[in-house]
Amino acid sequence: MKSQAILLASRPQGAPTAAQFQFETREISAPTEGQVLLKTLYVSVDPYMRGRMSAAKSYIAPFEVGQPIAGGVVAEVIESQSAALPVGSTVVGNLPWQEFSVADAKTLNPVPVDKAPASYFLGLLGMPGLTAYFGLLDICQPKAGETVVVSGAAGAVGLLVGQLAKIQGCRVVGTAGSDEKVAHLKALGFDEAINYKTTPDIAQALANAAPNGVDCYFDNVGGAITDAVYDLLNKHARIALCGQISTYNVTETPTGPRPEGKLLKTSTKLQGFIVSDYHSRWPEGVAKLTEWYAAGKLKGEETITEGFDQIPAAFLGLFAGENTGKAVVKVA
Amino acid sequence: MKSQAILLASRPQGAPTAAQFQFETREISAPTEGQVLLKTLYVSVDPYMRGRMSAAKSYIAPFEVGQPIAGGVVAEVIESQSAALPVGSTVVGNLPWQEFSVADAKTLNPVPVDKAPASYFLGLLGMPGLTAYFGLLDICQPKAGETVVVSGAAGAVGLLVGQLAKIQGCRVVGTAGSDEKVAHLKALGFDEAINYKTTPDIAQALANAAPNGVDCYFDNVGGAITDAVYDLLNKHARIALCGQISTYNVTETPTGPRPEGKLLKTSTKLQGFIVSDYHSRWPEGVAKLTEWYAAGKLKGEETITEGFDQIPAAFLGLFAGENTGKAVVKVA
Repeated sequence: MKSQAILLASRPQGAPTAAQFQFETREISAPTEGQVLLKTLYVSVDPYMRGRMSAAKSYIAPFEVGQPIAGGVVAEVIESQSAALPVGSTVVGNLPWQEFSVADAKTLNPVPVDKAPASYFLGLLGMPGLTAYFGLLDICQPKAGETVVVSGAAGAVGLLVGQLAKIQGCRVVGTAGSDEKVAHLKALGFDEAINYKTTPDIAQALANAAPNGVDCYFDNVGGAITDAVYDLLNKHARIALCGQISTYNVTETPTGPRPEGKLLKTSTKLQGFIVSDYHSRWPEGVAKLTEWYAAGKLKGEETITEGFDQIPAAFLGLFAGENTGKAVVKVA
Repeated sequence: MKSQAILLASRPQGAPTAAQFQFETREISAPTEGQVLLKTLYVSVDPYMRGRMSAAKSYIAPFEVGQPIAGGVVAEVIESQSAALPVGSTVVGNLPWQEFSVADAKTLNPVPVDKAPASYFLGLLGMPGLTAYFGLLDICQPKAGETVVVSGAAGAVGLLVGQLAKIQGCRVVGTAGSDEKVAHLKALGFDEAINYKTTPDIAQALANAAPNGVDCYFDNVGGAITDAVYDLLNKHARIALCGQISTYNVTETPTGPRPEGKLLKTSTKLQGFIVSDYHSRWPEGVAKLTEWYAAGKLKGEETITEGFDQIPAAFLGLFAGENTGKAVVKVA
């Protein structure tokens, strides 16, 4: 059968554009023993994928030019050569940006659609949820009454970090890029939220929002916001270094004030991480997130775009700050 | 009785000079109940003391202008109002830069002079030894076969870090500021040592010295050496952030390439620390260092200057790279 696919046309220099994406109709072979044929339901677009568009060595191999881009996908099994995944099953896996695809059943995880909407397994109960869970609870280990700052707070991960920190009894301060996002954060229970695009003095605004200093910082953004947080760290602060979206599209090595002196004086721990560092503990994370979701303590916010042809636009929108919560494309 | 004292005359702007120190003769009162009168034997001069000369908030209170500078001192009890410390005892404590002083016995620790030279309790078996021990073994946790880089390797802490890393079975690379120091490091068992002052391309030299990348970095220095190490980090690298001597005397906020992206891609942990963070574990550290010293596995290298009036010069020499190993002033 035939399927549309989205290939990496060329590697971006600086900010990616529509020119990086090429639509192509591909022939999909029939599934063989142990494989399933999948119909894509939801495609996840995530900031980390920008890194895979470059050739530079990173924690995950680069995408290849002329090959389909791949990432988190929720799909339905429409033909099966695997007893484990009968036709009609809903699964999540790392799959190409295609309307249809074939995959080994053992690379896929069944989605318990009775527990939450299927797309949540790309967000709250998927990679972003686990990223927030381990980054905040394992690296930062916030204690009740401490102040937690999260940058990119209205993003897929940030929204969950803030909610998890509230569950821990912390004061939570978020930064985001629009007044609508700020209002949304406050409605979700953030104690303070700052529009970094319109606030003239971000350092002063953060100092006002964190009058007792910062104990934990969950960084999705980097740059000037992070510089300002470094000046507010309390003794024995913990930083979960999750993303640096402010620098993903720069073409020169970004420079700034050196942080080491500030981290030294405060005995701060800064830990870079990627969710796969916690692979062995994913079941624990999913179970706990599912429990909090079922209890109404965690909300799985999404920005859903519709249509396979809208995937590139949804991806590019991440860097324009267009999404609140998890950015997902509904394909079928 | 009377004693010479060295006071902080003024706070340095940039690099400290002799103008920061003022000699004064002070009256020393007789010890009262629980106190001892001390004759200073050895005074420790340490890079961290530069921070205390500034008014800026840090992990330890600033020295006061017009008051004696204080730090690690080994002294002999010459008059005692404490049963715990009879006359003739040798002790170590945080004491003023004076020929004589009075202190509460409970603020002092007896020095087991049968185990090592008394001055070693300011170095190998004192604060620098414990700094190396906890920074390397607790924060970095090096495994046999891993590559450990230490900057400021010929300093009091760095020399011990390298030796401890060799005990752990690691490949050890050090940076230092003279050919004599480099030769000394190699004689002590460092696998590679780099003179950062004469090497034209420090990044290339480090890459050559660490062909398998860097697993652990013990940073005493900061700046360009640290920037270069960040480019060599292996996945799950660990950085013990102990000092930043290259920036202690700058008057503007130092800037440089932002490290966060590199730390993120490698899931590196960077932990700022000061030895007092490990206060509850000091006995363990001293016991282990003493055991390795007794077994001939650790050498306690010193640069000893003689004379109370030479204390300021010995301190200033730290920033000119004049010492190899622990810088100590022999007073009496």
